Amino acid sequence: MDPRPIGVFDSGLGGLTAVRELARLMPEEDLVYFGDTGRVPYGGRSRDTIIRYARQDVAFLRSFDPKAIVIACGTVSATALDVLQRENSIPVFGVVEPAAHAAARATGNGRVGLIGTKASIRSGAYERAIEALRPGTEVTAKACPLLVPLVENGRFRPGDPVAEQVVGEYLAPVREAGVDALILGCTHYPLLRDIVGAYMGPSVSLIDVGAQCAHWVAEQLDRGSLRAGRPDAGRRRYFVSDSTEDFAALASIFLGEDVSAEVERIDITQY
Amino acid sequence: MDPRPIGVFDSGLGGLTAVRELARLMPEEDLVYFGDTGRVPYGGRSRDTIIRYARQDVAFLRSFDPKAIVIACGTVSATALDVLQRENSIPVFGVVEPAAHAAARATGNGRVGLIGTKASIRSGAYERAIEALRPGTEVTAKACPLLVPLVENGRFRPGDPVAEQVVGEYLAPVREAGVDALILGCTHYPLLRDIVGAYMGPSVSLIDVGAQCAHWVAEQLDRGSLRAGRPDAGRRRYFVSDSTEDFAALASIFLGEDVSAEVERIDITQY
Repeated sequence: MDPRPIGVFDSGLGGLTAVRELARLMPEEDLVYFGDTGRVPYGGRSRDTIIRYARQDVAFLRSFDPKAIVIACGTVSATALDVLQRENSIPVFGVVEPAAHAAARATGNGRVGLIGTKASIRSGAYERAIEALRPGTEVTAKACPLLVPLVENGRFRPGDPVAEQVVGEYLAPVREAGVDALILGCTHYPLLRDIVGAYMGPSVSLIDVGAQCAHWVAEQLDRGSLRAGRPDAGRRRYFVSDSTEDFAALASIFLGEDVSAEVERIDITQY
Repeated sequence: MDPRPIGVFDSGLGGLTAVRELARLMPEEDLVYFGDTGRVPYGGRSRDTIIRYARQDVAFLRSFDPKAIVIACGTVSATALDVLQRENSIPVFGVVEPAAHAAARATGNGRVGLIGTKASIRSGAYERAIEALRPGTEVTAKACPLLVPLVENGRFRPGDPVAEQVVGEYLAPVREAGVDALILGCTHYPLLRDIVGAYMGPSVSLIDVGAQCAHWVAEQLDRGSLRAGRPDAGRRRYFVSDSTEDFAALASIFLGEDVSAEVERIDITQY
């Protein structure tokens, strides 16, 4: 048993799609979330900058003495997981390995699609993880830099002509490659699931990296006997680096429920 | 005569559209440009955060002992100009006042359109400036949060279905209002000039805030006898807060010419 909280972070609020699943699977756990809303998005930045920002995000979460850190961000997971694991004595989980396992399980024909931010695709992290699990799998990867701004502007519902056009353009080569599993490699993308699913067709499995990661974390904590093991519902705390004003509106999109949460602004550059 | 450089900054590289015009009008001036590429974009952030970032941007430029600061960013100009002017003993120029003058001159029917980032539109700065110059002018303003990501992803050319669709959606109420002048209130937007011009029609004057600001700065420096007054071409130095790798490619889009410039990365949080 370990009553300490789980620390979760993302470049912004997309990681709340993982928090939603963590809270569903482990309602008794205390969760501390940090969204770096003052510096979002990370996906177009350089590797150096992503690592520098991620180190500060982890340092902030570690001030809560967490038992584990969850990187609920495709970009940071793909770019900085190894660095963060090396530098921290507690478990640090990213979204790449759980998604790679899910993709290796899901594909029948050995052709897997991957969409993510520029930084995620540049890293090659998903390809390496999938190759280790299922050698010879053919991965068709596509950077989709406009999807995060579209989601953050509420443009993700079927019938939205811009979202449908952009998704179709990005996914054309992926569909062409004949994949039967597609990794939605960014925690913003589950909101585009309906549009992506309609474009790819019902025979393609869509893999939500945040949800896969949440399952993975729950399993790992169980194995290590690290669950909180209390009967009551855990406490959820939210921190951001920009104004807290817009938090409730955006957070409710990603959490899928109204949030009247404790949310506090911090200066991330102090960490 | 004043041989000191002019400091110019923007949240990213859009401000280079103003640098281009400054360099054309005053080729003899030394220019120091800072683009906050590690924290771009500013347009969706809160007023507090924009002011905090802008103060650091100015502090960095002041380390070069400039004779004037040019805010080549619609968001910062609309949000933080008064604060920055109050805190600095040298002239600080923004894009709002020059654009307001240009709009007041350009409109015949007293109906002016305005597009910009969320923060620029929220500020009400353009409306106040236009009202002071031409009382009773009707301003139809529209926040266009997707235009910056579109431009930064190279989606600004006529024929691009996404750019045309998004521009049309944003501008529909502005065209409907019957404006005869439209302020392109963000230094990214000149790249969308062809699409915007085609949608609005030839009778609507398009006002490029960066170019207007450059003319304004040249006039003000002339009046104050602050021009460098040397025969040679001035030196241009560029600084960014993220990797310098992608600078040349993006910068050449905004400057309209190939850049093989000196560019250096700095840590803006130290200022």
